[in-house]
Parts: sequence; structure tokens; C-alpha cells
Amino acid sequence: MTLSFAAALLGELRAHNPLVQCITNSVVTNFTANVVLAIGAAPAMTDIVGEAGPFARVAGGVLVNLGTPTPEQRLAMEEAVAAANESATPWVLDPVAIGALPIRTALAQKLAPQTPFAIRGNASEILALAGEGAGGKGVESTDSTEAAAPGAIALAQRLNTVVAVSGPEDFITDGIRVIRVANGDELLTKVTGGGCALGALIAAFAAVRGTNSPVEAVAAAHAVYGIAAEQAAAQAAGPGSFAVSLIDALSTLTPSAISSEQRIREYAA
Amino acid sequence: MTLSFAAALLGELRAHNPLVQCITNSVVTNFTANVVLAIGAAPAMTDIVGEAGPFARVAGGVLVNLGTPTPEQRLAMEEAVAAANESATPWVLDPVAIGALPIRTALAQKLAPQTPFAIRGNASEILALAGEGAGGKGVESTDSTEAAAPGAIALAQRLNTVVAVSGPEDFITDGIRVIRVANGDELLTKVTGGGCALGALIAAFAAVRGTNSPVEAVAAAHAVYGIAAEQAAAQAAGPGSFAVSLIDALSTLTPSAISSEQRIREYAA
Amino acid sequence: MTLSFAAALLGELRAHNPLVQCITNSVVTNFTANVVLAIGAAPAMTDIVGEAGPFARVAGGVLVNLGTPTPEQRLAMEEAVAAANESATPWVLDPVAIGALPIRTALAQKLAPQTPFAIRGNASEILALAGEGAGGKGVESTDSTEAAAPGAIALAQRLNTVVAVSGPEDFITDGIRVIRVANGDELLTKVTGGGCALGALIAAFAAVRGTNSPVEAVAAAHAVYGIAAEQAAAQAAGPGSFAVSLIDALSTLTPSAISSEQRIREYAA
Repeated sequence: MTLSFAAALLGELRAHNPLVQCITNSVVTNFTANVVLAIGAAPAMTDIVGEAGPFARVAGGVLVNLGTPTPEQRLAMEEAVAAANESATPWVLDPVAIGALPIRTALAQKLAPQTPFAIRGNASEILALAGEGAGGKGVESTDSTEAAAPGAIALAQRLNTVVAVSGPEDFITDGIRVIRVANGDELLTKVTGGGCALGALIAAFAAVRGTNSPVEAVAAAHAVYGIAAEQAAAQAAGPGSFAVSLIDALSTLTPSAISSEQRIREYAA
Repeated sequence: MTLSFAAALLGELRAHNPLVQCITNSVVTNFTANVVLAIGAAPAMTDIVGEAGPFARVAGGVLVNLGTPTPEQRLAMEEAVAAANESATPWVLDPVAIGALPIRTALAQKLAPQTPFAIRGNASEILALAGEGAGGKGVESTDSTEAAAPGAIALAQRLNTVVAVSGPEDFITDGIRVIRVANGDELLTKVTGGGCALGALIAAFAAVRGTNSPVEAVAAAHAVYGIAAEQAAAQAAGPGSFAVSLIDALSTLTPSAISSEQRIREYAA
Repeated sequence: MTLSFAAALLGELRAHNPLVQCITNSVVTNFTANVVLAIGAAPAMTDIVGEAGPFARVAGGVLVNLGTPTPEQRLAMEEAVAAANESATPWVLDPVAIGALPIRTALAQKLAPQTPFAIRGNASEILALAGEGAGGKGVESTDSTEAAAPGAIALAQRLNTVVAVSGPEDFITDGIRVIRVANGDELLTKVTGGGCALGALIAAFAAVRGTNSPVEAVAAAHAVYGIAAEQAAAQAAGPGSFAVSLIDALSTLTPSAISSEQRIREYAA
């Protein structure tokens, strides 16, 4: 069987164990680190001024997640982004809950033009960043993926990046191509950090993408994560056991399982 | 079957999915958010200056937990409390480990008179806030619920709030009524955040209490949480699996199960 | 059956429920607190300026873990170490990821000479502290335990402390004696905080060591933790369920199981 690009990239990730720096919110650091370890990468949550930049220079990928942006983290994020760009380290922006909240919204608007490898969020967050929405209900989306699609494409074109909108079917675009990933399970929305951890996986796949295009690396992360979620949901009694099984499933996923279970469709934007 | 007030309030909570802002300690943010999600509410851990206040204006309820009060969080707490009071958003105070520790004790004494919807803690924490004890052993209580009862009643009357003392049988009073809730399991004391997450549930129930009195909303949170703990303990092999099962149980609890399993007694104070 | 020192110390720990203060990184606070609770001690994550010192005076043991050292935590660590030393409270240093990262490396070099009860880390971290290595790959070791052994012995002699190097077989020395502990499971390296939580256990065992030598207390913590890991691994489907079972296993371990399952060897350094 020929492996899909998602399957092949999972094999690359396992072979290279990329170092993934996560500057992320205090709610999900533990879960995110365990997701990164389970998939076969090496997490490091280096998020202080004076270390965030040096680490971004040696990391394979960097996640910048705005969930609980303390003053120290905000400065560390800017330091990491500048260093990542100087070192050609791909970095991912997750503009958690922007829209109504003023500090993170301003920070997201400042960081987004600084050539992120990808921006991921729910529909409300992407619409807010695209300047087309007022934001969601806290960290929850109040807009549909479909409603966010035009804004996502425009944002990807304007910023020359990949934009990924999480939803029942994920929508991923680089402004030219559109890849939709239908893998996943609604239980992901019942575990805190269900979306945030995906941002770290995107950074991990970015680190090993090789000659694959960025939009494929981002789609691969979504497919792998979504397939693991489906496997976990099949044996979960609720969101608690789902989160545990998700970590287990990520650690045992094989590239061939990805090829056979992925539900990926592609269109022109 | 006529539903009890606790059962009815769980139905209300599920119907309205209230937004619960948690300014809480770094140890329990993840567990707390998952508890809030599992019961059917929407958590947001917005705890920075400049956002804590604006968020408190739109939240359904706010938790202020003093477990690891960094300077940033202390300022954010004061901002959130002021905004919550201006917006009539109910907020809950959890004075974790006050007594011997000077900074949080002073902060608790400053916040407590600012019309919280409820104050929850263990016996030692409530006695320390009532000015009658020296505090417990770190986060553990060294006093019994019975010993704290008079202080809790006096505190509720003085501050015109609801005071809840967690213990083998929880003691909840508004200074006039006393409700005791016997649901729960000792394993809750073996999971970090076992008490802290209850504070977030109180804020969630406060958000949907409707015409129920505050003391009933607080008691409902205790009963629902305690029943879930009993269900989880029945299939746990230790505190690790108990915490996982507790999240599962919270997500599957039904109002009718609450009516049949609750152990609530009421007295005059 | 005569109990081994590790078994006897577990009995002491259960009997005395020591208070363990953890100033640790944001990724592992929850897991660490649950590990400390499961073994039978009382965790408190008091890590702010103005409280870290007072708490260290009353705690049975203190962990200082440099994983995510915010400016506030760095000051709190220095305050706690000074107070611990004045009060003869044993404190444990975990120099997470030192070597390449400048701020924590400087802090570790400043704290290490201040009479810690023990220093624990992976081989790369211990080599970096001993001045013989460049540090590992983020939080992962790139050196073997054997390679770190001479540096560990020299460091223990120079600082008059116990140095513990985690690996497939743990290497623990006070500069005179060498104890190797072969208990454990590789899944510990797949759970974030697998090593960090051990630092808290060392502080707990230090609190109850009585007439046992420090090197024995440190070895006991390694053996107990490693045996629990073996039991957890026997029923885990991956790192997610392993972490849950590890907490369960720690809570049900008996001293007699330690005596029969421990794999401890001793040499002269």
C-alpha cells in the first residue's frame, strides 16, 4: 500500500523525534506535553523571557498559544517568534478566545503578520482574526466552520500562511488549496485542551514536513489527531476516560492505520 | 417523580451551558476545567489583568481560588470581583490554605467582605476566615466540620453570604438555613483539586439558580459533585482512576439520579 | 520478614503524612501533587514570594524544580531555600533542562552549593551541573547514566549532598556510597513529569528518614516509585493509562511489596 502524505509524515515524526517548544496556557500544559510525547516528539514548555528565544532557535517547531497570556508569557512569545523567524523554525499561532478579550486580541493581531507557519483556531477565533467576527463564547465557537471558510481563505492569502479551522469537519487552507479532514470526535470538545494540543501537533509535523507543502503538514496533524480521537472514543465512558485513551491511541497509531482511516478531501480554494 | 431542587438545577445547568470564569491555582486548572465541561458548563480560566474584569462582566459565574496567588493573579482577582459586583455576576471565594500563609490570608480578608455569592473551604480555612482558627496543614484541614459550624454560621451572617464547609458531611449555611449534604467519597481528598473544582461547580450552579435561594444552589453543587464521586469510587482502583471516573460520572449524571441518590438534610441555623 | 530500609521508610511516610512543599514547573504541578498524595504525604505548591519562605519553615521537605522558572518563582525558590536551610528542612534540587538554557543554568549553579539534601536529574542535567556536559535535548537526556557516574560522584563530594541520576538503572551516590536501583519502566519517560514527580517523592522520604542516611532515603524514593511504575506498566495500554495506574499503584503499595520487589544494589563509590 502506498502511504498517504499524512501516514508518511507520521513515520517521519517517529523517526526524527522533533523538539517542540510550547508556549501555551496554564490549563493545558500537562495534556499538551503528554500529547506531544505520545505521538513521538519531544515537548519543552520553555516560556520565560531570556530562554524562550534561545530555545526557539534549536527547536524543530514552536507553538504560541494565547490561552492565559501572562505579561511574562507575552514577552516570551514575542522573543520566541522573533528567534524562530531568524532561525527558520516554523511556529504556530493559536489565538485562543480572541475577539472580546482585549489583551490577547491585540497580541494576536501583532503576531499574526509575523509569518507563522500556520494559524489554528475554532471558527469564531479565525473570524475574529480575519476581522469578520466578534469572537465566541469564551473558548467555545459560536460560528460554524462553513461560515468561517471565506474568512480563513482570505486570511491565509493576506498573511501567506496556512489557516486551519477546527470543527466537525476541519477546514485547512493555504489560500490556494483547501483540505478538509473529517476525522475526529465530538468528545474532543469536552476535554480542555482538546484543540490546544492540536496546535502542538501541528508544530511537530511542521518540523518534519520535508518536501511536503505546509498545508499538507497541517492536514496530517489534524488527520492523525482525529483518528486517535476516534479510536479513543470507541472505548471511552465519558470525557475523562476519553482523554486517557487519546494519549494511549496517539502512542500506538501506525502510519498504515492513518492511510486506511483518514478521511481527507481536497478542493481548490 | 418530582425533581429535587438539586436535580432541577442540574437540568437548568445542562440547558443553559453557563460560562464559568475560573481564576484558580496552577495545580488544578486542568482538572477544574474538565469538571466544568463534564457537568455541562463552559469554563474559561481568564486570569490576567485587563481581561479578568471584562470577562467577569459577561460570565455566568466566577470562581476566585487563592491556591497559588501570583502577583498578577492577585490583581486580576480584585479586578474580576469589582467587575462581577458591578455586573451582578455571582462570584465564589475559595480561601485555600489561609491562616498561616500571610499573603493569601490578607487577600481573603480583603475579598470576603465584597459580597461573594458563596465562600467554600475546609473546616480549617473557614475557621481561619471567621477569625477563630490558625489554619490547617497546608491545604488539609486539621479541624472537623462540626467544630467549624458555629463559625460558619456567624461568618455567613456577618458577610451576608453562603458559607460551605467541606467534610465527610458538607455543612452549608446562609446564616439562617443549614443544609447538610452527606454525598461524597473520601477519595475526593486524595485527588488534588478535589475541593477546588467544587468551587467552580458552585459558580456554575449560581449562574443558573433562577428563583432558588443561594444556599440551595450551593447545596445542589455539593450533592451533584458528591453523587458523581460516589459513582466514581464504586469503580476506582485508587485515586488515579477515581479522578478519571469522576469526570465520566459528572458527564453522565441525570437529574433523576440526583433526586434518588441525594442525601440532603436541612435544619434551621 | 525483615523489611528493607526502603520498605521501612514507606511505612514511616504513611505513618507521618509529611508536608511536602513543591516549587515546581507549570507542566507537572497537578501530576506531582497527585503522586505526593498517592504515596501518603501532603503536597502544597506554595511558590510565591512572601509565602514560599514561611512555608518552607514548617514543611517536612521542599522540592525546587527549575522546569518553568518564572521571575516570581525564581525569587520564591531563593526565599524557600534560605528558609529551609535556617529551619533544617531538607530540600531537593531538580535542575530541569539546564545546560543550554541560560537563566535556569545560572540559577542551578547558584542554588546547588546551598546545601541541598539531594540533587536529582537525568544524566545530561547532572553532567551540566557538574560542569562536564552541554545539557540534553530539552528535558530529555542525551547522555547515559554510566557516562554521568563519575561526574555525579564528584558533584556529591564537592557539594556534600546526594546526587541521583535517573536512567534505566538509577545511580544514587553521596560521594562515598553508590546505590543503584533497577526498578522502573520506560513508560516513565513517556509521561511528562515522570521524573519531576520523583523529586517530590525524594523530599517526602527526606522528611521521614529518621536515622537512615540521606542516600538511603533517596534510594528508597527511587525504589518505591520504580516498583509502582512496574505495577502500572503491567496493566497499561499506553502512556495515558500508565499515568493513571501509576497513581493507583502508589496508593496501594505496601512495605512488604517493596521488600520483595526492590532491585537495589550497593557499591563503594
